[in-house]
Amino acid sequence: MSTYDQSAVTESAVTVIGLGPMGRALAGAFVAAGVRTTVWNRTPGRDRDLVAAGAISAGTAAEAVAASPLTVVCVVNYDASDAILRQDEATAALKGRTVVNLTADIPDRSRSTAEWADAHGISYLDGAIMTPTPSIGTPDAVFILSGPKDLYDRHHPTLAVLGGSHTHLGEDIGRAAAYDVALLDIFWTAMAGYAHALAVARAEGVTGRELAPFAGGIAAILPALFTEFATDLDEATYSGELNPITSAVSTMSHVVHASESHGIDASLMRLIEGYARRVVAQGHGTDGFVRVADLLTDRPE
Amino acid sequence: MSTYDQSAVTESAVTVIGLGPMGRALAGAFVAAGVRTTVWNRTPGRDRDLVAAGAISAGTAAEAVAASPLTVVCVVNYDASDAILRQDEATAALKGRTVVNLTADIPDRSRSTAEWADAHGISYLDGAIMTPTPSIGTPDAVFILSGPKDLYDRHHPTLAVLGGSHTHLGEDIGRAAAYDVALLDIFWTAMAGYAHALAVARAEGVTGRELAPFAGGIAAILPALFTEFATDLDEATYSGELNPITSAVSTMSHVVHASESHGIDASLMRLIEGYARRVVAQGHGTDGFVRVADLLTDRPE
Ligand SMILES: NC(=O)c1ccc[n+]([C@@H]2O[C@H](COP(=O)([O-])OP(=O)(O)OC[C@H]3O[C@@H](n4cnc5c(N)ncnc54)[C@H](OP(=O)(O)O)[C@@H]3O)[C@@H](O)[C@H]2O)c1
Ligand SMILES: NC(=O)c1ccc[n+]([C@@H]2O[C@H](COP(=O)([O-])OP(=O)(O)OC[C@H]3O[C@@H](n4cnc5c(N)ncnc54)[C@H](OP(=O)(O)O)[C@@H]3O)[C@@H](O)[C@H]2O)c1
Repeated sequence: MSTYDQSAVTESAVTVIGLGPMGRALAGAFVAAGVRTTVWNRTPGRDRDLVAAGAISAGTAAEAVAASPLTVVCVVNYDASDAILRQDEATAALKGRTVVNLTADIPDRSRSTAEWADAHGISYLDGAIMTPTPSIGTPDAVFILSGPKDLYDRHHPTLAVLGGSHTHLGEDIGRAAAYDVALLDIFWTAMAGYAHALAVARAEGVTGRELAPFAGGIAAILPALFTEFATDLDEATYSGELNPITSAVSTMSHVVHASESHGIDASLMRLIEGYARRVVAQGHGTDGFVRVADLLTDRPE
Repeated sequence: MSTYDQSAVTESAVTVIGLGPMGRALAGAFVAAGVRTTVWNRTPGRDRDLVAAGAISAGTAAEAVAASPLTVVCVVNYDASDAILRQDEATAALKGRTVVNLTADIPDRSRSTAEWADAHGISYLDGAIMTPTPSIGTPDAVFILSGPKDLYDRHHPTLAVLGGSHTHLGEDIGRAAAYDVALLDIFWTAMAGYAHALAVARAEGVTGRELAPFAGGIAAILPALFTEFATDLDEATYSGELNPITSAVSTMSHVVHASESHGIDASLMRLIEGYARRVVAQGHGTDGFVRVADLLTDRPE
C-alpha cells in the first residue's frame, strides 16, 4: 500500500519515459495542456525543447517515475522498456503507481509485463498509438488501451489531453498489442506497396507528386473494402462476385511484369500473386481475395 | 475516311465489350443514363439483365462495334481484348470509330495497341478504372485516360455519364497504364497486408468486424503520408525525423514474431523487414522508409 494519495493528483502530473519522436510529441502535449510533466530519456539532451516549454528533467528513471502517480512509457520496444523499468530502483519507485506503456510490441510482452507489475505492486495498462506524431494533441490521434477497466477510467482524464480517440479494448492486457500488431501489419505492408509503386512510377516517368493524389484515392476505397472483407472472413463467405480472385491474379501479374521490365525487384508482388494463384488452384477462383487469409493460416479445415 | 458522321451520335450511342462485373457496371450506367447501349460478351447470356433494362444485344463483336461510333472495352487483360478486336471482321468494323479500352494491362500493351489502331484507321484511347464496381455511375468513380487530347474531349461527354472523376493524364498512350500498374501495386499490397492482419487478429481472438474500424483508421492516415513520401522521393530528402526506419524495423519484427508464433506465414513482412534492414545496413537508419524505393530499383547511384 502506498501512503501517497494518488487520486488527488492523477489529473495534474505525469512522467514521460522515452523521448524519441513519439515520446517528445506526448510530453509536448502534456506540457501544452498544463499538466505537470516530468521527463527522462536514456540519452540525455533530448529534453531541451520540452524543458524550455516547462517540463521537469529527471536525472534518473527512478527519479522520473517517483515524480508522478502516472508514468507513460514510449520507447522503441519492450526490450527497451524492460531495460528501463525492470531494474531495482525504478521498480521500487513505481510501487503503488501506474504505468501506461504506449510502446509497441507483441501481446506476449504485455502479458509478461502484467505479471511483473503484479508482483511488484505496480498498476499497469498497455496501449498503442495508431497515428503519426503530428496527430498527437489533435482530434486525429488514435489510442488503443487494454487492462483493468477501473485503471483505464481513473487515468483517462489525464491521457485525454493527448487528443483524439481513446478506446479501451478490454481487460485482457494483450489485446491492445494484438490490435497494434495487426494494424502495423496493414500499415507497413501498404507503405511497402507504396514505396514500390513510387519506384515503378518513376521508371515510367511519373513523379511521386503526380502519383500521390491517385494513391490517396486508393487509400480512400480501402475502408469500405476492409469492412466487406472482415464480414466475409468472419462468416466464411468469401464473396468474389464483384471482384473474383482470377481477375486479381491478372492485375498482379501486370505489376510484376511492368516492374521487372524496368529492373525493379517485384518479390513482394510475386509473393502476393503466388498466394492468389494458390487460392485459384484450390478451386476457389470465383471467391474474393480475402480467401488468402485462410491460406496463410496453418489450421485444420 | 469514314462517311459516317461520328460527331452527331457521339453522345448518344456506345458499345460495351466485356460483361464481367466491371463491364456490366459500365453498360448499366450507360443504359441508366439513356445512352443507346449495345453489348457483347464472349460467353453469351451475361447480358440478360442489361437487355431487360434496355441494352441491345449484339450477335458478334463485329456487329457490336458497328452499332456505335464509340466502343468501350473492359475485359480481363489485353490478351483478351486482342482476341476480340484483332480479328478481321471486328477490326474492319472499327475503321473510323473509336475504342476506349478500360481493360487493365501494362504500358507496352497500350503502345502496341496504338500502333495496331493507327494501322487500321481506328481512334484509340487507353484508360483504367481505379475504384470498385459499385462506384460506377456515382461521384466516387475514378477514371484515368491517356491518348490524343482531342479524342478525349470528343468522347468525354459520353464517358462522363459513368460518374466520378475523369482525368486525362497526357497524350502518351501508355500513361494511364503506368498509373494503373502503380496504383494496383498499392492496392493489392495493402489488401494482402489486410488479409494477413485479419489472420493474425483471428489467431489473437480479435474478429474481422472488431479490427475493421481501426483498419479504416490506418487507411485514413495514408494519404498525408503518401504525399510526404512522394515529395521525399522526388527531392531525394528521405526524412525520417518523425519516424526513422530503425523504429519501423522494430515494429515489422513484431508482426513477424506474432504471426509465426501462431503458425501464420509471415513471408511478406519478412521481405519488407529485410528491405528495411538493408536500408539501415547501408547507413541510412535515420532516414524514412521511402528509401526502400531506391533499394528496389536497380540503377546507378
Ligand atoms: N513515430 C511514429 O510515428 C510512431 C507512431 C505510432 C507509434 N509509435 C511507437 O512509439 C514508440 C516510440 O517511437 P519513436 O517514434 O519515439 O521512436 P523509436 O526509435 O521507436 O524509439 C526511440 C526511443 O526508444 C529509446 N530506446 C531505444 N533503445 C533503448 C534502450 N535499449 N534502452 C532505453 N531506451 C531505448 C530511445 O532512447 P535514446 O534516445 O536513448 O536512443 C528513444 O527514447 C515505438 O514503439 C513506436 O512503434 C511511433
Ligand atoms: N471488378 C473490379 O472491382 C474492377 C475495378 C477496377 C478495374 N477493373 C478492371 O476491369 C477489367 C474487367 O474486370 P471485371 O471485374 O469485369 O472481371 P474480369 O474477370 O477481370 O474480366 C471478365 C471479362 O473478361 C472476359 N474475358 C476473359 N478472357 C477472355 C478472352 N480470352 N476472350 C474474350 N473475353 C475474355 C470475360 O468474358 P467471359 O464472360 O466470356 O469469360 C469477361 O467479359 C479488368 O481489367 C479489371 O482489372 C475491375
